[in-house]
Amino acid sequence: MNSVQALAISRRIRRTPFTERVEKLGVQSYSIVNHTLLPKAFRRSIEEDYWHLRKHVQLWDVSCQRQVEIRGPDAAKLVQWMTPRDLSKAKIGQCLYITLIDQNAGIINDPILLKLGEDHFWLSIADSDVLLWAKGLSLGSGFDVIVDEPDVSPLAVQGPRAEMLMEKVFGPSVRKIGFFQFDTLDFKSNSLHISRSGYSRQDGFEIYLDKSSLGLDLWDSLWEAGQEFNVAPGYPNLVERVEGGLLSYGNEMTRANNPLECNLDHYCCLDGSIDFIGREALQKIAKSGPAQRIRGVIFEGEPTPPCASPWTIMADDKKVGYTTTVVWSLKLKSNLSLAMIDADYWITGQEIQVETPDGLKRNGKVTEFPLSFL
Amino acid sequence: MNSVQALAISRRIRRTPFTERVEKLGVQSYSIVNHTLLPKAFRRSIEEDYWHLRKHVQLWDVSCQRQVEIRGPDAAKLVQWMTPRDLSKAKIGQCLYITLIDQNAGIINDPILLKLGEDHFWLSIADSDVLLWAKGLSLGSGFDVIVDEPDVSPLAVQGPRAEMLMEKVFGPSVRKIGFFQFDTLDFKSNSLHISRSGYSRQDGFEIYLDKSSLGLDLWDSLWEAGQEFNVAPGYPNLVERVEGGLLSYGNEMTRANNPLECNLDHYCCLDGSIDFIGREALQKIAKSGPAQRIRGVIFEGEPTPPCASPWTIMADDKKVGYTTTVVWSLKLKSNLSLAMIDADYWITGQEIQVETPDGLKRNGKVTEFPLSFL
Repeated sequence: MNSVQALAISRRIRRTPFTERVEKLGVQSYSIVNHTLLPKAFRRSIEEDYWHLRKHVQLWDVSCQRQVEIRGPDAAKLVQWMTPRDLSKAKIGQCLYITLIDQNAGIINDPILLKLGEDHFWLSIADSDVLLWAKGLSLGSGFDVIVDEPDVSPLAVQGPRAEMLMEKVFGPSVRKIGFFQFDTLDFKSNSLHISRSGYSRQDGFEIYLDKSSLGLDLWDSLWEAGQEFNVAPGYPNLVERVEGGLLSYGNEMTRANNPLECNLDHYCCLDGSIDFIGREALQKIAKSGPAQRIRGVIFEGEPTPPCASPWTIMADDKKVGYTTTVVWSLKLKSNLSLAMIDADYWITGQEIQVETPDGLKRNGKVTEFPLSFL
Repeated sequence: MNSVQALAISRRIRRTPFTERVEKLGVQSYSIVNHTLLPKAFRRSIEEDYWHLRKHVQLWDVSCQRQVEIRGPDAAKLVQWMTPRDLSKAKIGQCLYITLIDQNAGIINDPILLKLGEDHFWLSIADSDVLLWAKGLSLGSGFDVIVDEPDVSPLAVQGPRAEMLMEKVFGPSVRKIGFFQFDTLDFKSNSLHISRSGYSRQDGFEIYLDKSSLGLDLWDSLWEAGQEFNVAPGYPNLVERVEGGLLSYGNEMTRANNPLECNLDHYCCLDGSIDFIGREALQKIAKSGPAQRIRGVIFEGEPTPPCASPWTIMADDKKVGYTTTVVWSLKLKSNLSLAMIDADYWITGQEIQVETPDGLKRNGKVTEFPLSFL
């Protein structure tokens, strides 16, 4: 179970505008997100990449964050129908973290919404075909919109020195881009949307490359300019993300979960002032309270293998939850898990046992979420 | 570019009821289909597995062929709306190869439809979230249906000795199952749907395991019974599939292609007698004729690496097509490609050049499709 398997390659597993450079830099492993390659390791260990990310700057090929473009007269109406988050005050140039839910309040995706215009949106998606969901909804409902997947491949620039690097390539305007805002800046006579965002708790930007043929040029420009900042290839770092309490669709949440279980109460408008798919189901869950919630769990013993499927969490001789992602925390020097914990047991300090694949029952305790003590 | 990358593991990449056995048997590589592991190599070479598949019997973990269940009063109406194939004469117990297309006639998936009842269907899907497409359409249109992904994981038993093995485990009734038909047979007091089908040109069956907890038991029963038939672990064999002219969604066809380009004219009812999404677009394409079609291409030289992205095909000093999948044919002892070829050049015998990633331009010719000369 600890052996490593290769990824079989075919056209169906899509390459990106940056794959050539990623290969040249010695990519060691990939995950697949949205039928697209996502680098997950280079020549250094995840620990080395973690410390590097926290000190310097990295380029991440996150082209797998495909954009679902929704535009046309009914675009705003469709987008609001798709999410429990109140978008009535959203402004052009803003990025908004939203969940998309089905009629049972099951989560279908948790994208970043970019408001490009009053009737023009991008959903920068996690791993599910939101394109088909949005197309199906609009076609079924007769909404007057165009839904498509444009030629857009995000490149993330992450780390405390990201701003310095970005300024060198795009000019001083990047400094003015606020957190979860985007602006349109020039790269060799091409206008690119650039947001201050990214899947880490460090500072960083995402460049929405909308012309694949420019990919190598963009990568090379950042790479060259980044030499003085000790730039390195990177990827969403599992340890940094878990310590930072960032959730992952398919890991912390699936269609079997609702936003309240994922502590996303703040992003759910339940007062009836807006209409969205799954509202009734979500209101019902809110009334009784969710049956389980994502929490942190710290547990003893040696580092574990990756959590390929949920591990049972026990207390009082019964199952009270399961792990969703497990890492060796470099801050705590301990195993650290994100976990879905039943209502009666999600209290900070609750003693639990984690059943790891080596057959051990490891003592641990529930921690607060987000893990602000870290 | 020829180096091998590992697959990074997480809960998001779903394991199957059979993964434990597949690992024990030394799986060497995986692809990802529908967010699920698909074994793609074991301890032997693809050539050895090819010859074994053609002589003996293999177990394939194709759990990634997820089922999208559509049931309820409007189920038949919704399913017919989703495909250009005329389903009016479909019978319960029948499997039908269909394409799902969007309003532009772009292919969204090419599943096998299982008609379980007059108002109960499964779509056994290729790699895209048809669940979201069907849910979106039904929710938008207000169809009275339930759309879900049940706990069903197909296990394929493929090869000329499949029938003997299946008979030993399921009894003589398996012999009566006709090609692209399914029956419901007993396995240890559980009823399982079993079809005579599979992603090879050999004889074979697909067992629709609808209870994950039975997975290891089912695998072990087939494995044990199969010892006398020289059973081995297998997987959809790229060489056998290309020689057999079986298409793959994401490789031969994407949303940029329509069914006529994929030679699926026979599965498109264009006389106006049935209504389906994309009919108008498809009728328009049929009228002018498709601009390109899938053909076979044979070309010279050493075996190539896998086709990770389309390679240009030239004739008369211009681009006239691209490869979609390339293998070393063991029948022809030559490179063999499935390829999308422009209208003026898709004639059998047409001389072309394939631009392979090693920088060579390799002489070849267009062949008929399907490759019935093989």
